[in-house]
Amino acid sequence: MNRPMLWGVAAALLVSAAAGAADDAADWRTVDPDNLMLIQTKYGTTAVELAPQFAPKHVERMKALIRAHFYDGLTFYRVIDGFVAQGGAGEDTAATANKPKNPENEKAWPKLKAEFEVPIPKGQAFAALGSPDLFAPRAGHVDGFPVGRDPKARTEWIIQCPGTFAYARDTDPDTATTEFYIVIGQAPRRLDRNLTAFGRVVSGQQYLQKLERGDPAVDSGVIADKSKQDVITSIRLASDLPADQRPSFQVMRMGTKAFAAWKANRRNPAPDFYKRHPTHILDICLSPVPSRSTPSGG
Amino acid sequence: MNRPMLWGVAAALLVSAAAGAADDAADWRTVDPDNLMLIQTKYGTTAVELAPQFAPKHVERMKALIRAHFYDGLTFYRVIDGFVAQGGAGEDTAATANKPKNPENEKAWPKLKAEFEVPIPKGQAFAALGSPDLFAPRAGHVDGFPVGRDPKARTEWIIQCPGTFAYARDTDPDTATTEFYIVIGQAPRRLDRNLTAFGRVVSGQQYLQKLERGDPAVDSGVIADKSKQDVITSIRLASDLPADQRPSFQVMRMGTKAFAAWKANRRNPAPDFYKRHPTHILDICLSPVPSRSTPSGG
Repeated sequence: MNRPMLWGVAAALLVSAAAGAADDAADWRTVDPDNLMLIQTKYGTTAVELAPQFAPKHVERMKALIRAHFYDGLTFYRVIDGFVAQGGAGEDTAATANKPKNPENEKAWPKLKAEFEVPIPKGQAFAALGSPDLFAPRAGHVDGFPVGRDPKARTEWIIQCPGTFAYARDTDPDTATTEFYIVIGQAPRRLDRNLTAFGRVVSGQQYLQKLERGDPAVDSGVIADKSKQDVITSIRLASDLPADQRPSFQVMRMGTKAFAAWKANRRNPAPDFYKRHPTHILDICLSPVPSRSTPSGG
Repeated sequence: MNRPMLWGVAAALLVSAAAGAADDAADWRTVDPDNLMLIQTKYGTTAVELAPQFAPKHVERMKALIRAHFYDGLTFYRVIDGFVAQGGAGEDTAATANKPKNPENEKAWPKLKAEFEVPIPKGQAFAALGSPDLFAPRAGHVDGFPVGRDPKARTEWIIQCPGTFAYARDTDPDTATTEFYIVIGQAPRRLDRNLTAFGRVVSGQQYLQKLERGDPAVDSGVIADKSKQDVITSIRLASDLPADQRPSFQVMRMGTKAFAAWKANRRNPAPDFYKRHPTHILDICLSPVPSRSTPSGG
């Protein structure tokens, strides 16, 4: 009964100040409800857009787990302030190597092959950041996702920015099963291409910030007292909800005037205010592409 | 009556996993209680080390305001997820330019001259990061603070990382009075040398993450409903508390073996786990120098 109300709160949020400036529907892409994931906790709903183009097998797994209601009632058991919020069953990752494994989970959800990077699709639209990046040979956006590219190897990957959604794993690269994390702090770029990233938060990042934290010095940040771990009420795909209860989000299209204006604003957001040493340098992780909510079923 | 208990909670926190590895007292500097600021909200205590060497007049002002109990009962009125938590009286800044000003405040706390950067003191110990930085000609640490340097101009400044404490201001540079902010998201480096930064969080950053958020698209993120703004219960200097109620924090000394080991770990935290593309690049804002709590009065 609470769900529509909580989604209403999320829907009332405007994610970016820049969003208001461009009101032309052609400037916005509606997120496919089949790729729109809704993570519910007592704090509110966090909406994540999944990116099958960057990790098809991981997205397939995530959708199967969601439809099996695997995550409902599980917890965010490893939450490290300034780093990541990790959720799931609390097993099968490097941080939970000492925890018992549920043999049924192991059987139902076998280890996935890593999808750390993918070949760059021919003709893919890529909005180059236009600023240097310390970690990726090139950085920019694809469909609103922050993306690194290696032009020599002709591969690309989603960058680990605040809001990036990825699967945790054990020490071996090909070991992700069911455990996920979302970045909640300064971009941990060392994770780029070391874990499979396949989504980003388009609304409700602030609810993740309210999650109970673990102590990174103890047990890799896993919260020992299970009663203190915040519960994942549910994870649903928008497409599985009745149309009238379905939240809808849009992401600003690259290549539009609105996108160019947004980017110019990011480079120099307030010329009167920033009088000294304007660098005009963009940090790929400080420039999340604007997203906005639209009326239900929109 | 609640205060000692809440501080006890903060004191129980170990800030960094690296801290446990080095247990030699000589590796740690105890924060001067006269520069240790304790910000109390209902969520917990956030401890900030003030840095008079980077902005003497701002630190002097902050201490005078604390001792006048200026902030007690005021609020965090502008909290933007992924950016800053701004607190104080809600006036006299660019974000609150349309709010009424209290003439008594204006008289008692006149506008400060900006202290965006200071001359590099002769012989000052500087631990160069050893990685490039996109924004500062040089980046490194001074007394545990993240610092940018311009060798040509021979100036330095505190970098705007998560946990950086600074004063807000109006459009003119020389307008800071009483309003402060703490960075709570991806480092907004465009603020470097555009606002006066003079401290950093040494414990309790996670409590700031629980603060009620404003909508950045509305009124610069100022929370319209005052009853929703989280209250600053109090701000105190540790030196003003009775010795037996005084929390104590230490910061890892630069130039020690422990510091070198910490930095090597930051460059390559888990060689077995990060098998691919280890970059060994450090981000100055992803590498807060370890701090730890010590027994009261220690």
